[in-house]
Amino acid sequence: MDLVYTLDLIGTVAFAISGTLSAMEKRFDLFGALFIAAVTAVGGGTVRDCLIGSTPVTWMKTPYYLLAIFIGFLLTILFKRRVLRLKKTLFLFDTIGIAIFTVIGVGKGLEYGLPSYSAIMMGVSTAVVGGVLRDVFCNDIPLIFHREIYATACITGGIFYTLLHYLNYNENVIIPITSLVIVIIRLLSVRFNWSLPKSDLKG
Amino acid sequence: MDLVYTLDLIGTVAFAISGTLSAMEKRFDLFGALFIAAVTAVGGGTVRDCLIGSTPVTWMKTPYYLLAIFIGFLLTILFKRRVLRLKKTLFLFDTIGIAIFTVIGVGKGLEYGLPSYSAIMMGVSTAVVGGVLRDVFCNDIPLIFHREIYATACITGGIFYTLLHYLNYNENVIIPITSLVIVIIRLLSVRFNWSLPKSDLKG
Amino acid sequence: MDLVYTLDLIGTVAFAISGTLSAMEKRFDLFGALFIAAVTAVGGGTVRDCLIGSTPVTWMKTPYYLLAIFIGFLLTILFKRRVLRLKKTLFLFDTIGIAIFTVIGVGKGLEYGLPSYSAIMMGVSTAVVGGVLRDVFCNDIPLIFHREIYATACITGGIFYTLLHYLNYNENVIIPITSLVIVIIRLLSVRFNWSLPKSDLKG
Repeated sequence: MDLVYTLDLIGTVAFAISGTLSAMEKRFDLFGALFIAAVTAVGGGTVRDCLIGSTPVTWMKTPYYLLAIFIGFLLTILFKRRVLRLKKTLFLFDTIGIAIFTVIGVGKGLEYGLPSYSAIMMGVSTAVVGGVLRDVFCNDIPLIFHREIYATACITGGIFYTLLHYLNYNENVIIPITSLVIVIIRLLSVRFNWSLPKSDLKG
Repeated sequence: MDLVYTLDLIGTVAFAISGTLSAMEKRFDLFGALFIAAVTAVGGGTVRDCLIGSTPVTWMKTPYYLLAIFIGFLLTILFKRRVLRLKKTLFLFDTIGIAIFTVIGVGKGLEYGLPSYSAIMMGVSTAVVGGVLRDVFCNDIPLIFHREIYATACITGGIFYTLLHYLNYNENVIIPITSLVIVIIRLLSVRFNWSLPKSDLKG
Repeated sequence: MDLVYTLDLIGTVAFAISGTLSAMEKRFDLFGALFIAAVTAVGGGTVRDCLIGSTPVTWMKTPYYLLAIFIGFLLTILFKRRVLRLKKTLFLFDTIGIAIFTVIGVGKGLEYGLPSYSAIMMGVSTAVVGGVLRDVFCNDIPLIFHREIYATACITGGIFYTLLHYLNYNENVIIPITSLVIVIIRLLSVRFNWSLPKSDLKG
């Protein structure tokens, strides 16, 4: 499905923008900002590919991922004010990004013969590890560990994916449904301010 | 040896508990706590498998590791007070964990034809990298870099393992002896408050 | 080329010294210092090998890398005052290190059939990721993200390498020229205090 690939690249640009913004907050130099953009955008898929053993990792084989990263980086550096004002668009792209990253990750896990629970893990890794690495390299506590229903949306989507897969549905059915599930959960969670309970040692 | 596998899973539960406790100290949400539990428990083995090229990595192939992580996580979330009171039991399980993780890592390294010094490194990585990653993701300085004789016990155990291996001893001899060496060094080091000298730029 | 291999090991010693010094600043214990020395020295090549799928990773197959790390570590621990006074020599070795690490990384990428842009990325990763990981494990913001023209020198060198490669030049020509380009850019950037513009959200 070519649409998946296009959405994947849109997600990559969105993640690269989020990485560049994090780096700018820390006043990294241009190389640092580009590095963080890349880690945010393709870090999740890279870790997934290394864990599965699908090497060389995906982004190395075509120029489009590096290009998408560079576009996200450049847009943010050149038009930072306008980018910051586009918060809603960015949020939408980011949400499309985590949905499509999850779907691609689960699909790749199943394709490599992994059991469903591990395929779901691969979907979640693809979607969330880039953001975790962004925060680690910026010396912050990963945002995703204390924030709205982000990973939960990916896990739920992953469960849907594998269920539909074992019910023998076609990818053309599975991918849009699963993506939609993730997008809807995320949108609802932000709209109604849902979040997971905090863990706590006291009380 | 089925005993090794059982001990491996007990170690995994113990490491998952330690990860969950770290996340709770930082007040991560439930997903964050589960993520840290997983990284602590299987991070070392995952890095080992990626460096060796044994992919898909071990925990993906059976449900037992994810199950062990989830049990450790759930126990800690549900019974935090009781878990915190069980310090001695946890310490014992943790010590069994690093012993068995080291033994498994060295064994896997040798099985993949690595020279003995690299097999020892794989044993140490299996035992200590999970805890290092836990601290990095929690934005702390890794505990293991300024603490009792922890890695030293693993290195010594790894040396014993490879020596006995080249003397053609059987795994049924090597594994218990090596594990015992690690457990004893760790227990003694904590009992008598041994630690490695600090490195320092001054003085 | 045996000279490349020798320079690679000199670079490894220089990187191990830089890692040990970072660990000493944080007053890590001896194991912590050795761990950071190793991560700094072979972290870049390790990540490169995992991304390419060239496993077991390079340093595992010969004793020389571990030996070079241990020498760098030991020299720094034993002669810290003298090591600190040798700033210029260290800087020179470090510069040789990043040049030769870049060259080796690009070469390995091309050898594995990667497209040139990814081979260049592999060169840069080999040279800079070790230092990034050193800083992450020491809980610092990576130095390389706000510092003189360091990665830029590697990227420029990588571009030279792939250009000469596609012009069918021999490695005996490519390697010295590329290394020299990197060394010269780095020396000039430090001499004239060049640096990349900072990224910034304000202004």
